Amino acid sequence: MNYMLHAIGLAELAINNDEVPVGAVLVNNEQIIAQAHNTCKANNHSLQHAEMLVIQQAIENLKTPYLETCTLYVTLEPCPMCAAVIAQARVGKVIFGAYDPKSGGIEHGPQIFKHSHFQPQIIGGVLESQCAELLKNFFLKKR
Amino acid sequence: MNYMLHAIGLAELAINNDEVPVGAVLVNNEQIIAQAHNTCKANNHSLQHAEMLVIQQAIENLKTPYLETCTLYVTLEPCPMCAAVIAQARVGKVIFGAYDPKSGGIEHGPQIFKHSHFQPQIIGGVLESQCAELLKNFFLKKR
Repeated sequence: MNYMLHAIGLAELAINNDEVPVGAVLVNNEQIIAQAHNTCKANNHSLQHAEMLVIQQAIENLKTPYLETCTLYVTLEPCPMCAAVIAQARVGKVIFGAYDPKSGGIEHGPQIFKHSHFQPQIIGGVLESQCAELLKNFFLKKR
Repeated sequence: MNYMLHAIGLAELAINNDEVPVGAVLVNNEQIIAQAHNTCKANNHSLQHAEMLVIQQAIENLKTPYLETCTLYVTLEPCPMCAAVIAQARVGKVIFGAYDPKSGGIEHGPQIFKHSHFQPQIIGGVLESQCAELLKNFFLKKR
């Protein structure tokens, strides 16, 4: 299964709810253990980014604080908050789609993993143009 | 009312539960709208830092994404995750006790607010020795 395509599907669902189209899937042993898109708008909640939601779901469902064996697929480079959440929850691997020069926290801004005690494996730019296109179209329509 | 003393009281409660003694209080219009200590151990949850908990409580209770008019009192310099949560939720002012050279995220490490779109007012070192002493004694007993 292509988990990034699944995350893109979640991001497309977000658009229907007028949410910024970012989707995330958390995978453990080739199984999806949590999935989400942003719900900041629907829930009037500034912290409900897709990555934050799937990591919280996984911790609560698995009743474990750390997710070293998990891989996070997310359509956009995580922001500093989500990158720091990834470090705190020790998510073993992060695969993201589009880069985010303005608000990203891995390759950009505070570059969280250059300072964190825990560093996940990182692969960026997976299905990059498809992930970026969703965001570009969403924000173009907002103008 | 001395809100930092109140936060220290919460940190002391944490010790009774064998939690790292950090307490946080969120104040709006001279009223405490949320209070917490770390519950990482009790809930087996790596993200349940005191600051994260009070900010989530406030967003959910007030049904507002942003907390510009609020002041966060916390006994320890927030970590990168909590500092980024503060920026994301736009908490107007942060007053913290002890500095945390090893794991802090404001004055140390990724220095979150040097990169964030939103910067709160910051006052560090309030009742510093009292806040630091709690942590020092807690970890001494752990050896």
